[in-house]
Amino acid sequence: PYSKGVRTVTLIPGDGIGPEISAAVQKIFAVAKVPIEWEVVSVTPVKGPDGKFGIPQAAIDSVNKNTIGLKGPLMTPVGKGHRSLNLALRKEFNLYANVRPCRSIEGYKTLYDDVDVVTIRENTEGEYSGIEHEIVDGVVQSIKLITEGASRRVAEFAFDYARNNGRQKVTAVHKANIMRMSDGLFLRCCREAAEKNPDIRFEERYLDTVCLNMVQDPGMYDVLVMPNLYGDILSDLCAGLVGGLGLTPSGNIGTQGAIFESVHGTAPDIAGQDKANPTALLLSAVMMLRYMNLPEYAAKIERACYSTIKEGKYLTADLGGKGKCSEYTDEICQKIEAE
Amino acid sequence: PYSKGVRTVTLIPGDGIGPEISAAVQKIFAVAKVPIEWEVVSVTPVKGPDGKFGIPQAAIDSVNKNTIGLKGPLMTPVGKGHRSLNLALRKEFNLYANVRPCRSIEGYKTLYDDVDVVTIRENTEGEYSGIEHEIVDGVVQSIKLITEGASRRVAEFAFDYARNNGRQKVTAVHKANIMRMSDGLFLRCCREAAEKNPDIRFEERYLDTVCLNMVQDPGMYDVLVMPNLYGDILSDLCAGLVGGLGLTPSGNIGTQGAIFESVHGTAPDIAGQDKANPTALLLSAVMMLRYMNLPEYAAKIERACYSTIKEGKYLTADLGGKGKCSEYTDEICQKIEAE
Ligand SMILES: CC(C)[C@H](C(=O)O)[C@@H](O)C(=O)O
Ligand SMILES: CC(C)[C@H](C(=O)O)[C@@H](O)C(=O)O
Repeated sequence: PYSKGVRTVTLIPGDGIGPEISAAVQKIFAVAKVPIEWEVVSVTPVKGPDGKFGIPQAAIDSVNKNTIGLKGPLMTPVGKGHRSLNLALRKEFNLYANVRPCRSIEGYKTLYDDVDVVTIRENTEGEYSGIEHEIVDGVVQSIKLITEGASRRVAEFAFDYARNNGRQKVTAVHKANIMRMSDGLFLRCCREAAEKNPDIRFEERYLDTVCLNMVQDPGMYDVLVMPNLYGDILSDLCAGLVGGLGLTPSGNIGTQGAIFESVHGTAPDIAGQDKANPTALLLSAVMMLRYMNLPEYAAKIERACYSTIKEGKYLTADLGGKGKCSEYTDEICQKIEAE
Repeated sequence: PYSKGVRTVTLIPGDGIGPEISAAVQKIFAVAKVPIEWEVVSVTPVKGPDGKFGIPQAAIDSVNKNTIGLKGPLMTPVGKGHRSLNLALRKEFNLYANVRPCRSIEGYKTLYDDVDVVTIRENTEGEYSGIEHEIVDGVVQSIKLITEGASRRVAEFAFDYARNNGRQKVTAVHKANIMRMSDGLFLRCCREAAEKNPDIRFEERYLDTVCLNMVQDPGMYDVLVMPNLYGDILSDLCAGLVGGLGLTPSGNIGTQGAIFESVHGTAPDIAGQDKANPTALLLSAVMMLRYMNLPEYAAKIERACYSTIKEGKYLTADLGGKGKCSEYTDEICQKIEAE
């Protein structure tokens, strides 16, 4: 639906290295002649009437209008009680599924060379409900909230994702042996989605077992779907297998829109020094292009990015190289132009 | 305190392969002339007045009397609503700290060769509180319970453990950026324990970050302390790095006693066929000997076990060998006798 004409996408460059890696993506997109226009909005947190920092209204309006956003890393305001703006964005736009593909990158050596998994994380509830109380002095409860609606939605998303991306299997990851009711409900929704999608294989595994298997034989898994916190953990583990958060993309998908983001930090120590690695944001932008039904542009940029990494020239310091962000970016641009 | 005379220890062989690996440990202990007597009790679950299966009173009495137990794997009774007897035991005896050392084993090759970490898991509360409700149809909450008492106790245990075992650093693992009150309380207790133990280095890290780092560079970590569920996850991940649950010991430490156990499954498919690997239970028994202040016996058995693995003869099938459980056991016995 999105393939006709020029579309406007909200770009939230973010803090620290955010602006320079965003500029890199913009440059590459321009060279690739991607038919999108950027609407750049700042998410420098603004203080609300309650004294807490939040997302500026202009940013919210922009994402609501464009329904698609690309986002660099955001700093969490320092001080007690401030919640992560990354989370605030996910909540604000009801981005219910967090998709993180992790694939071994040819030419970038890690201990593993056959990783190809996608974690799909319920992105709105679970341990992230934010509901906590101190019952009496020294006794605290946090509430893990699991609803049928959100569980079913993300379970069905996982099967659709698997089918649309040529994947074979969905694994539901849970601890329903411990949290029988909450993870039990999540699991039941996954089973029901599995029944409606008999063309995709389905299995269920305990989270601890998945972590153990994943470091021994990641080839056992394909698409994995799970409650919020488990996704936070497992997606980082998987990113570690292929080289870290500097190389792995992420997309937050909602009913009304989607935000794609790099999930690494703001790296204030190297900000503004032309040392940052734009790969995670670039690959997130590539995911975004596929989501927008612009697969040719996605493939072209992805090829250029991977072959630049494979050649190994101009890799940034975090990947063991000596390249600058700008050199690495220019190399990708040259490959795109040379095609 | 425990080194004088012969002590009685409760042995719970468990289900599936439990009896044969327990027999292996008994044989090795006999050959090593360890001054303990076994009181063997069955934990075949008995049905209580509420229709639920529980631990037989005789087993409870035995552990209460002896204060030390060694335990093989237990089956969780099939059917809705039955809780794991493994957990029931931890709860019954208030075994508040679960200690799982994971060390690379010389001669048993994995992708990693410098793993040497110990996870210390709060073992009585957190996500394992068992408190769950369905609020309305399709809306479930599970309660993560964090108390100051349990958090402080396990935090202080971690520092004591580090000191007594020649370790340098304790890392508190948390998600206090999300569960600010519950993990926040846990973290505060860790910080307070750190202040009282300035001879041990202290750091705090997010669970997701630890998982990522652990698969890239496990040498970054030493002793790690964390709430219940995080320990479940991270200890399995770490076990995966060194070869799996068949090789890693575990101890549950309480104020009144301790139970050491292998945490792998009952492997009913190979039970009774002399194919099981007794290593995890044996190394758990070695941990137990150190706890009982019998370090010479512990060291002797551990040496024999590790050198048997290193030589690679008689490794069981799960380790890629062709040895039988009895052959592997006999080899360890011979090495002990030959010393
Ligand atoms: C920044 C933090 C709040 C966030 C999370 O816990 O979800 C991050 O770890 C992630 O995975 O996106
Ligand atoms: C068997 C299961 C209930 C248990 C747990 O979740 O704690 C196991 O995974 C463990 O780590 O001991």
